[in-house]
Formats: sequence, C-alpha cells, structure tokens
Amino acid sequence: MPTKFLHFSHEIVGVVTEVGSKVKKVKAGDKVGVGYMVGSCRSCDQCSDDQEQYCSQITQTYNAHDVVTYGGYSDHMVANEHFIILWPEDLPLDVGAPLLCAGITVYSPMRYYGLDKAGMHVGVVSVISTNPNKKEEAISELGADSFLVSHDQPQMEAAMGTLDGIIDTVSANHALRPLINLLKPNGKLILVGAPAKPHELHTLPLLSGRKLVGGSQIGGIKETQDMIDFAAKNKITTTIELIPIDYINTAMERLKKSDVRYRFVIDVANTLKST
Amino acid sequence: MPTKFLHFSHEIVGVVTEVGSKVKKVKAGDKVGVGYMVGSCRSCDQCSDDQEQYCSQITQTYNAHDVVTYGGYSDHMVANEHFIILWPEDLPLDVGAPLLCAGITVYSPMRYYGLDKAGMHVGVVSVISTNPNKKEEAISELGADSFLVSHDQPQMEAAMGTLDGIIDTVSANHALRPLINLLKPNGKLILVGAPAKPHELHTLPLLSGRKLVGGSQIGGIKETQDMIDFAAKNKITTTIELIPIDYINTAMERLKKSDVRYRFVIDVANTLKST
Repeated sequence: MPTKFLHFSHEIVGVVTEVGSKVKKVKAGDKVGVGYMVGSCRSCDQCSDDQEQYCSQITQTYNAHDVVTYGGYSDHMVANEHFIILWPEDLPLDVGAPLLCAGITVYSPMRYYGLDKAGMHVGVVSVISTNPNKKEEAISELGADSFLVSHDQPQMEAAMGTLDGIIDTVSANHALRPLINLLKPNGKLILVGAPAKPHELHTLPLLSGRKLVGGSQIGGIKETQDMIDFAAKNKITTTIELIPIDYINTAMERLKKSDVRYRFVIDVANTLKST
Repeated sequence: MPTKFLHFSHEIVGVVTEVGSKVKKVKAGDKVGVGYMVGSCRSCDQCSDDQEQYCSQITQTYNAHDVVTYGGYSDHMVANEHFIILWPEDLPLDVGAPLLCAGITVYSPMRYYGLDKAGMHVGVVSVISTNPNKKEEAISELGADSFLVSHDQPQMEAAMGTLDGIIDTVSANHALRPLINLLKPNGKLILVGAPAKPHELHTLPLLSGRKLVGGSQIGGIKETQDMIDFAAKNKITTTIELIPIDYINTAMERLKKSDVRYRFVIDVANTLKST
C-alpha cells in the first residue's frame, strides 16, 4: 500500500461509544484502533493462521470493493470486534495512530523474515534516501544509526555487503540492484511498496549471495496488537501534523508536493465538537 | 550456474591414487567426487558456516580466475581434501556424478528455504515446461506428481495458488509472474539460473501473498556430502549418456541443439586406458 497518502485513511483511533450484546473484547469508553482491514473470511488458511491480511476476501477499511467503507473520514464507524486493536493507556492517540498501517507494515516483515535479531543491521529505505538534507533529522531525531545517500556512488560502494536486511518502503519505481548490493550474503530485501511498473531484477547478485527479494503487506490483527503494545512499552510514536477536518483540502494539496512531516492526522472528534 | 553445459565440467568422480602425508579424509583407492569448487578462503563468515559457495575468494574447479583449473577434462587432478566428497559405495560413479552440481543446486535451496517438509508441493521449472512432449517422461520416468505446460493459460490458471515453492532452473529470460501466481501465500520462487538480462519483477503479487523470490547457488561442501549420502541411501541417480573422450566434439555440437538426455558424462579413465 502507498502509505504516504492520507486519502486511504485506514489508521484510525477513537473511543468506543456502544457495543453489541455479544461483544466481549471491548466496552463503551475503551480506546481502540482500526487499521487497514475490517473484514476477512475468518476460515481460510491465512485467517486461521492470524494472517488475515493475506485472505483473498479481505474488506478494506477505506474504499472496500464489496461494501461501502469510508475509513477515518467518518464521524463514527462500526467494526467487528475481531478487527479492533485495544489501545494501550499510555500511547497517545494522535502520534500513535499512524502505527496502525505504517508501523505494522515495517514491523511485520521484520518479524516474518527474521530481521528482528539483536545486532542485525537493517536498512529502511527512507534512511537510504535520495535527499542528503534528511540526514541530520534521520540521525538525531529518528534515531537512525547511519544514513546513506542512494546516488552517492562511493558511499554506496563503501557500504556494500553490510546489511542483513532492507525494508524498502518506496512506492515508485527505482533500481533494486544497488540495494541488493548493500546486503550481506543471505541478506533480505523486503518490498512493502508496489510501483505501477515492474522492477528490474538482476539475478546473479541474488544467486551469488543467496539473497532474496520478498514482499510484505501490513500485518495480521494479532500481530498489529503485538506491535501497538510493543510501541507503547518502548515509547515509539510517529511524527505528525495534527489538523482540523476543515484543513483537509489544503492538506491534500500539500501531500501532492510531499509537504508533510510525516503524516497528517485529522482530529475529527474535536473538530466536529467545536462546530 | 548454467548447469546444462558440459563444458564447465565440475561434476567429477574418480579414484584417489595418492595422498599427502597430512591428509586424513581419504586414502589411495577411495572413490571420491569434486564439484563446482576446489578452494575458498576458509576463514570468512560464509566459510566458517559451511557455505563456502558464497565465499568471495572461491576457486572454481573449471576455469578459475586466479589459478589454472581444467576440471574434469584433466586425466588426473589434485585437490585439497576439504573440497573432496566421499563417494558412497553403493552409488554408481557415472549416474551419480551430475549430482555434484545439478543435484546440490536443487537440494541446497530446498533445505535453506524450508521447501523440504513432508506434504509440500514443490515445482521444479523443468516440470513446468514449455514442451508438452516432456509430460510422459516427467511423470512416468522422473516421478513428478504433475506436469504443467507453461503457455497453457487455462492449465496455469487452474494451478494458481497451489505450490509451496518452485525451484526455477531456467537460465534464459522468462516471465516470473505466471510462476509467482502458482505459489500459495508465503510461497517461494527460488532462482538457480542466471540469465544475461534482468527479469521483470511485478511487486504486487509478492506483497499481496507475502511471497519471495530468492537466489541460490550450488551448496557448501558439508551439504554436498549430505546430499550425496542422501542420494545413495534413497537410490537417486541421474539420466545420462556415457561417452568416450573422443566423442567430445560431437557432444558439444549436440549440446548446442539441446540434444542430450540429460547429461553427457565422459568416461575419461576407461577411454584413456583403451588408447
């Protein structure tokens, strides 16, 4: 999923106002989250294995194919309790919300592909950047260990064979080979963005280092709960701009120019309350 | 490695005639094999982990970069005992020889990528073939469970989402997408052939099924020994044409036309003995 664009609006947090009589997971007053999906078949191999995100009958929270869903643009929403994430008391709603898609999208492949071991060097492709001006922020504010400028040939060559894995979050077409070259033997390049056109895949670098290019898409509900709990425990939040609902058109214009650090979060409840 | 072409000649079996004073692994009279490599640095992470095949200082058995090696075209060869495979008494030399590259090339990724579990459906791309005439031989002689004709659209569509993994042995450029579509969620497409030009890699099918495209190249010495012992125990051999050394030029001409089922094996010792 291109997670950069707000218009998907599937990173939603709020407070439960009412529950059905058979609901056990939550009660009125609970803080909860809803991410990318609000439905799946609940019976296939993927659903049985807590990987609902790979169910072929998934219902997306925003703009679903089979039913009408408006995601976080609604002033309220109804969701099956299975797809509800319980919100930890000490995780702020606004700076925690983007974890529901952006967070799980990175967390899930790190778990599945075994890139979560102590001592591993894992690159995230926003810290292997085309823009050298992002370096200081990446290191001092976001806590990256290092920063690579992808078009700086000597820098990329010096870093060859140093990474155990890369989570590639870029949704535009770009060269995979320089990234694959950064990997150690047995290294893993995980794609979470899907460009319109196919990538070029050079096979010799894969063969000669037993490297792999894998895909990953958000994460299951159980895993999303684990991620949110992990974020709360380790005080991991996101950098956002909190905006009122009537700023939405300006926000959309700014998004087109990539002018946001790094997510717009709409404060729907407080905005509607004040009007 | 394009394993189809004899001229690499790195699938060699023979009998030890002489050993150095410190050699412990073999003695004169032992049957042994030598595969793709006869040297590596022996100290890097890969070598320490019995994955010499991914060492950056590998010495190839045939046509090495750093020293002169002639592989199986020699009438005798000298090799470090570390790179010697002990030959099981009950595995015939001629039909066992091709296992030293072709066999380990398929065995190793099945192990590493976890495609060796009971009940798994694994495709090998010579049994997903462009040539429907190969079907009977694949099923009745080679023991394949099924056979797919890759350009038969309805057949390929009916088989979508049915395979846990595919070992893709094709060294020419071909479409990966139809193969990726054959995979179940979490399925793995393993490339062991390296075409000259890059493949097209469509990312959405990887993301939406958490599939991966991985590379693999032969296998380590320890693993090659395991594979040869496994082959002997399970009576796995290869289909070959045994030829004398003076047939070599004709064999080369036939190879160019893919006219071999499925390997030429040169009987060097008996040919030289008779001249």
